[in-house]
Amino acid sequence: MKISALLTSAGINIGLCVLFLSLYSVLRKQPANVRVYFGRRISEEHSRLREAFILERFVPSTGWIVKALRYTEEELLAAAGLDAVAFNRMLVFSIRIFSLAALLCVFGILPLHYYGKNILHSRIPSEDLDIFTIGNVEVRSRWLWVHCLVLYIISGVACILLYLEYRHIARLRLLHLKRATPNPGQFTVLVRGIPKITKESCSSAVDDFFTKYHGSSYLFHQVVYKVGKVQKIMTGAKKACRKLKHFTDTTVDQSYKAITYRCCLCGASSNSFHLLPTDEVVPSRGKADLDDSSLNMDNEECAAAFVFFKTRYGALVASDVLQTSNPTKWVTDPAPEPNDVYWSNIWLPYKQLWIRRIATLLGSIVFMLLFLAPVTFINGLSQLDQLQKRLPFLNGILKQPHHMVQLITGYLPSVILQIFLYSVAPIMMLFSTLEGPVSHSERKRSACCKVLYFLIWNVFFVNVVSGTVLKQLDFFSSPKDIPVQLAKVIPGQASFFITYVLTSGWASLSSELMQLFGLIYNFIRKYVLRMKEDTEFVPSFPYHTEVPKVLLFGLLGFTCSVLAPLILPFLLVYFFLGYVVYRNQLLNVYRTRYDTGGLYWPIIHNTVIFSLVLTQIICLGVFGLKVSPVAAGFTIPLIIFTLLFNQYCRTRLLPLFSTFPAQVCIASIILQARK
Amino acid sequence: MKISALLTSAGINIGLCVLFLSLYSVLRKQPANVRVYFGRRISEEHSRLREAFILERFVPSTGWIVKALRYTEEELLAAAGLDAVAFNRMLVFSIRIFSLAALLCVFGILPLHYYGKNILHSRIPSEDLDIFTIGNVEVRSRWLWVHCLVLYIISGVACILLYLEYRHIARLRLLHLKRATPNPGQFTVLVRGIPKITKESCSSAVDDFFTKYHGSSYLFHQVVYKVGKVQKIMTGAKKACRKLKHFTDTTVDQSYKAITYRCCLCGASSNSFHLLPTDEVVPSRGKADLDDSSLNMDNEECAAAFVFFKTRYGALVASDVLQTSNPTKWVTDPAPEPNDVYWSNIWLPYKQLWIRRIATLLGSIVFMLLFLAPVTFINGLSQLDQLQKRLPFLNGILKQPHHMVQLITGYLPSVILQIFLYSVAPIMMLFSTLEGPVSHSERKRSACCKVLYFLIWNVFFVNVVSGTVLKQLDFFSSPKDIPVQLAKVIPGQASFFITYVLTSGWASLSSELMQLFGLIYNFIRKYVLRMKEDTEFVPSFPYHTEVPKVLLFGLLGFTCSVLAPLILPFLLVYFFLGYVVYRNQLLNVYRTRYDTGGLYWPIIHNTVIFSLVLTQIICLGVFGLKVSPVAAGFTIPLIIFTLLFNQYCRTRLLPLFSTFPAQVCIASIILQARK
Repeated sequence: MKISALLTSAGINIGLCVLFLSLYSVLRKQPANVRVYFGRRISEEHSRLREAFILERFVPSTGWIVKALRYTEEELLAAAGLDAVAFNRMLVFSIRIFSLAALLCVFGILPLHYYGKNILHSRIPSEDLDIFTIGNVEVRSRWLWVHCLVLYIISGVACILLYLEYRHIARLRLLHLKRATPNPGQFTVLVRGIPKITKESCSSAVDDFFTKYHGSSYLFHQVVYKVGKVQKIMTGAKKACRKLKHFTDTTVDQSYKAITYRCCLCGASSNSFHLLPTDEVVPSRGKADLDDSSLNMDNEECAAAFVFFKTRYGALVASDVLQTSNPTKWVTDPAPEPNDVYWSNIWLPYKQLWIRRIATLLGSIVFMLLFLAPVTFINGLSQLDQLQKRLPFLNGILKQPHHMVQLITGYLPSVILQIFLYSVAPIMMLFSTLEGPVSHSERKRSACCKVLYFLIWNVFFVNVVSGTVLKQLDFFSSPKDIPVQLAKVIPGQASFFITYVLTSGWASLSSELMQLFGLIYNFIRKYVLRMKEDTEFVPSFPYHTEVPKVLLFGLLGFTCSVLAPLILPFLLVYFFLGYVVYRNQLLNVYRTRYDTGGLYWPIIHNTVIFSLVLTQIICLGVFGLKVSPVAAGFTIPLIIFTLLFNQYCRTRLLPLFSTFPAQVCIASIILQARK
Repeated sequence: MKISALLTSAGINIGLCVLFLSLYSVLRKQPANVRVYFGRRISEEHSRLREAFILERFVPSTGWIVKALRYTEEELLAAAGLDAVAFNRMLVFSIRIFSLAALLCVFGILPLHYYGKNILHSRIPSEDLDIFTIGNVEVRSRWLWVHCLVLYIISGVACILLYLEYRHIARLRLLHLKRATPNPGQFTVLVRGIPKITKESCSSAVDDFFTKYHGSSYLFHQVVYKVGKVQKIMTGAKKACRKLKHFTDTTVDQSYKAITYRCCLCGASSNSFHLLPTDEVVPSRGKADLDDSSLNMDNEECAAAFVFFKTRYGALVASDVLQTSNPTKWVTDPAPEPNDVYWSNIWLPYKQLWIRRIATLLGSIVFMLLFLAPVTFINGLSQLDQLQKRLPFLNGILKQPHHMVQLITGYLPSVILQIFLYSVAPIMMLFSTLEGPVSHSERKRSACCKVLYFLIWNVFFVNVVSGTVLKQLDFFSSPKDIPVQLAKVIPGQASFFITYVLTSGWASLSSELMQLFGLIYNFIRKYVLRMKEDTEFVPSFPYHTEVPKVLLFGLLGFTCSVLAPLILPFLLVYFFLGYVVYRNQLLNVYRTRYDTGGLYWPIIHNTVIFSLVLTQIICLGVFGLKVSPVAAGFTIPLIIFTLLFNQYCRTRLLPLFSTFPAQVCIASIILQARK
């Protein structure tokens, strides 16, 4: 691809971005769209905006950028939860490391590449992009030590920054657990795999078990019953009936707020939960179902139970310890928070879960492999002759003037890939649901991992290893040659990755800001269907699509940094824009209903480490190809040090993300007692 | 290799076995050797045998076999611990599954192989061994479904038997934990990573921490101090001095019985520990060191502490829960039993352990790869022309009559390999020590894993993939072709494996029974050095060499069963002989000082599953080579089912081997309270 084709593509995307951003700055000021752009605020503040017509509303402005940047981390934490902070820190980390990388690579390495071979340079716009990659450096070049040095600096700084961020998130997570108003979810344990005991109701079995084995801290429990099919249909019918009668506001509300807790340590100061007298009936969905299904009481199936403890420490111990000699019975896990419970999965038999996990794993692998077909097809499009062969109807256009051809080769493949990729997140979400997680946040986190693997495999590896499916499998069947193979192809694919950053990165960010779907939905709802406004429906932030997207760009940045540094300025623009846009979205648009408590950070950390090691392995291959044994020799200890660093983080910080330290639990109890 | 060469080798080994067994049956009746052959009994019973000269003593007999077989499992458990039972069950499992396999393969598959091709058969003794392998079956043979069916039956029965054994061992483990006289180790937690606090002694820091966070069940503690170098040399000098003065009996005893506990639940019924008055000083090595090193009290370094709890449940909770927000501080683990503590590793800084683990892992991998050189050399010896080239001085012998050549090709390679292998166990034990385990049993278990990987890699894979080191690495660099490659070479290597079973299996069993080293050591000690008898020195059973050995033979059996069934009768003899010999040794020779509580079983289980899956993959390759798509197609679901079965066992039974169920702990407390 020529520089001019790249510039065409960049120009289109910059134009689109500017258009979308201006549109956004206008649309956000229209009162009709306030639900789309300020969903979180509306649902929290319930304030009314003025409906008057003012000219100012129709002038594009940049005030929102300033507002988004002005918020501190504490405000973000308070408004959108720890996951939002982790996401924000990921962007900050990316900006920092890629600023450094851009500085080093554009001024240090790019000239080396450009003047790498003694060839006559034509005018820059008509230069081939390959001239800016390491492919243009001569074999046995004496300048390869610069690449090695830059690789060392980037890896070292990345590790230091990663460690600082990891420690910061871990500290925030501990504060999150320690904070003064305790969360009812922390006093509760979810029990699954309750054995079937005849002649004794499930409830008394749970009571007996916990009184006997955790008597000192056990408080009470709430059994979740499985609803029969008939019951389900009836409930569904009732709901539909109610919806038609426009009783939406209250009923939808009830179905979300499924359970309310009573905890002995929740003082009256807690504003989301109130202390109830003990004899008052606990309103819970489980209870409600039980009352409804009193007709077919015989068929009731005891699926799970929420067990409440007097202290957080009691709940922690009960969830950490193996209960009985059969590990699939009386399985205790920390309960998700009330809003976070994914009710449809609560009554899945615990024994099924391992096989569900394997089945969904296999399913997603098959899906990933099947997706090779469109990706391979798209990849072929970036070569002009392939394009003419595959889409013969384009022949007419391709005979058109030069810039048209540039437009198609530079832009079309990424757009098609983008459209295909829109189907991935819902399918992965479906897989994650089938897996059987008991909370929304766990489901989203699991989907996040799946989408991440999917993107790394299908966007990075498969695009790198162009060719037919069988050829690709051949590529991965000889692990020893992978570094050399990757080193051969990565520089050549840099131009594709740059256009990918432009289309998938920039354009998707501005469309995220625009909320095109939300806008259309809101318009149809309001002006076509003339429905009442639904204040309750505010979406959650789609971590499962956005985290993998940002991480993928990080992977592209690391792997291309030393080999084809031209991608870095484009990426840096993406990260800056992303920082502003995502902060704005988190603060204004999305509502945080549930939170994993920073559990996305280990995923982010592992992916960055993977990217670093992959970069180092590719560089090892490149140094090998360029016959530079010194540079290659120096790269091997770097790989070892990076892996050791990762292992250190695993020992030192990872345990904090899987369980709670007893000290924190007990300290908070002591704090409570003193108050 | 011809049948006659095999028979020569078998003849030699049978001769050696019979000789050794007869020698054993005579030697065991000599009073001078009683310490060698009845070490465990002597140390327990302290009885004296008559010294009179009776002719009967010099007549070989078989009474010991009957005696060894007569013991029940309960007696074995009482005498040698749960590990011995797990080892015994492994042999029983092997006998059962290979009896079935031998029956099916020798009568079902061997004739198919022998008459597989329409060739004129010569007399059986001069037949080539390859004629009995699957190599002799024609491509597209219509009899391959028999192989597939036999594979199904063996895999299915193996899985069922494995599950039954796993459940049995898990049940025994629970009983072991539940038994009425509680073990002091179960009330104790080993704390490492105690932070350095100035102006406060370590002991009071431990006291404060556990009183604050585990106050309800905390009893008291015992700090282990690190001894300085000078102190160590002095202690060593003192010991040597004492030994010279022949005060051996009492001092050695003290250094082993390092610590004595006082537990509130150890009633007077416990015969190994006595209830001491609270104010009596607890005699422990840690304390003793403290008293000795009172001179350099300033340099003392608080390394670890044993913390004692009132209940087993308290200790369980304290060891299960993450203590503080820094996972490398206040690390709590279940304490090993008093005899089991490996004192030299107790004071290793906990922060070092992760890097030690990685370093020893790398060290053992390097060792495994370096070992390729002798193995490759040996492998070359089994080909006659290679032998003449490499060991030219053998040329004279090789021109000798036919049986001499047969002797060398059939016997020499295994013997040389065997000699090299003797160095492996001590080196792996050294690696395991460097890893930093805090108990003898953990160290031995870790060494067992290392030796197992070593044997599977160096005896199985490297022998299979004959050739130079580089060629071998090439072999493993294309994972897709491995099944086909293995399928090509395994049948050809069957003759080597048969001789390996004969030399390494049969002969080493009889030398294990003979205790050649013990016999010589005892002889020198008694008649040359004229030292006093040392009743305390009775070795522990070398699980780290014997478990991998038996598992390797299982692997050979599974992989060769369908492809070269001639190995099975030889293996079956090995397992029967092993059953008798090892029972005898466990009951008479070795003393069980420490016990992992059946933790060897998961290793055994995983190895058998690995062997099964490897067998299935090799068969898949063979069916592919023989162009039998039906048989190959039927093998794939078998692999999936085997892996699913393994996953089921992991979910259902494995957790019992890593932690104790709370129910069992509390039930035993209730039981104690009722007494």
